Amino acid sequence: MFNNIDLYIGYLAAILTTFSFLPQAIKTIKTKCTKGISIVMYSMFTIGVFFWLVYGILIKDYVIIFAESITFLFAFIILFITFIEFYKENRK
Amino acid sequence: MFNNIDLYIGYLAAILTTFSFLPQAIKTIKTKCTKGISIVMYSMFTIGVFFWLVYGILIKDYVIIFAESITFLFAFIILFITFIEFYKENRK
Repeated sequence: MFNNIDLYIGYLAAILTTFSFLPQAIKTIKTKCTKGISIVMYSMFTIGVFFWLVYGILIKDYVIIFAESITFLFAFIILFITFIEFYKENRK
Repeated sequence: MFNNIDLYIGYLAAILTTFSFLPQAIKTIKTKCTKGISIVMYSMFTIGVFFWLVYGILIKDYVIIFAESITFLFAFIILFITFIEFYKENRK
């Protein structure tokens, strides 16, 4: 088992970082509370994940394509709600 | 220039996603406002980034080591402050 340990650690890292955005997306959808969230972070992060997706497509790496599509979905939801709350807040 | 386009896109993606956590770390340090932040997300994400770092060390990829060390630093700061605020909130 130990000769592929790097592969298992890589997959574990990918699963954790990819699905870590699910609890944030759920919390943001449920509470609509985005006060502590940095809109600059999620703008940069979502664009960055989009480029990871393009990168995965260019090098035909289906693990990257799969992981980044999921992360992009969650990050985009969080960014979208953060923008809406930011807009509502500044319209008052 | 176009025959290495995938490399440039990969680096751009790495830079954006790595440094996207800097504005969130700054906002969290400045405001100590972690209300909208998911503690589950940052726990999963910080552990995941730690495993990416271990992965980078195992395969001796200095780009991954460099990028994940920076992301780990920012994510750990955000997680640490979120835990403190979460603890303060629940002690009331």
